Amino acid sequence: MFLETPIARFELKFDAEGRNNGGYRNDITVYRRARVVESFDLPTDEGTIIGGTGTAPYPLAYFASGLTGCLMTHLRSFAKRLNMPTTDFAVTTRCHWAAQQAEQVLYESKPLSFTMDIEIGGDVSDDEKRRLIAASSRACFVEQSMKPGLVKHRLKSGEAWIDLDE
Amino acid sequence: MFLETPIARFELKFDAEGRNNGGYRNDITVYRRARVVESFDLPTDEGTIIGGTGTAPYPLAYFASGLTGCLMTHLRSFAKRLNMPTTDFAVTTRCHWAAQQAEQVLYESKPLSFTMDIEIGGDVSDDEKRRLIAASSRACFVEQSMKPGLVKHRLKSGEAWIDLDE
Repeated sequence: MFLETPIARFELKFDAEGRNNGGYRNDITVYRRARVVESFDLPTDEGTIIGGTGTAPYPLAYFASGLTGCLMTHLRSFAKRLNMPTTDFAVTTRCHWAAQQAEQVLYESKPLSFTMDIEIGGDVSDDEKRRLIAASSRACFVEQSMKPGLVKHRLKSGEAWIDLDE
Repeated sequence: MFLETPIARFELKFDAEGRNNGGYRNDITVYRRARVVESFDLPTDEGTIIGGTGTAPYPLAYFASGLTGCLMTHLRSFAKRLNMPTTDFAVTTRCHWAAQQAEQVLYESKPLSFTMDIEIGGDVSDDEKRRLIAASSRACFVEQSMKPGLVKHRLKSGEAWIDLDE
């Protein structure tokens, strides 16, 4: 999917198969459905503080890594495609949700904000970095699956942060 | 967050800190920001077939597990809260995306469909299972962050599958 040679259109399929036998641990295996199928064991659990057994990461920890990693992979892929002489990247994503009581013992949840703070190293102008981030955001499979406008991006410029979504 | 004792409102914060030094591997650590901070090393990589080094799961594999695990955890938590005598759960999520060429060497992506096939064991009626799934879906932090209507759910009833979003 990140071949250096662009193709006009392609599709991606990932299937997750989860099993739960009573507690908060979910045994989940994810399959990448392609000519060669690859699989990954990615179980989830809750921490002991909140009733889980702490044997695996939280589901939201996986989500946060998936969102961050998907954008970062596109930054790297597209920097190569655009021949931008980037060096290191650092991306910090802050995911923030709220939950509110609904029915007597249940709650409903909503996302509050997702901000991605992006630092890009190398002899590249801020304008080029902005172009790289915008293109990567439009290509990021996770971000494009989320509510429009929810994910915000900031670019480090010298010692300052530039808001990119205003 | 999944305490048996409901509280009126609460918030969740997860931060991901990612670093990339040149290839497709992203070293990502996720922090759960709470009174006691927990951290998880969740690096991502691309497969060798597509230019990565295959040292870690794909970002989208984490995403698929996070989405699936978040719903499953709510199914378990809410079944307990509602005193439903559920036993085992199995959830299979199929995530499907497309990417299409945009600028000359770049592409844009979009989600096509996310379907969650849910089996719930135990002496519980289909109506109760539907109520459990609907409530869990409204509480699932990942699903509530996604484009409305994108995630579809099906319930196994005997040998048949019931579409729950029609």
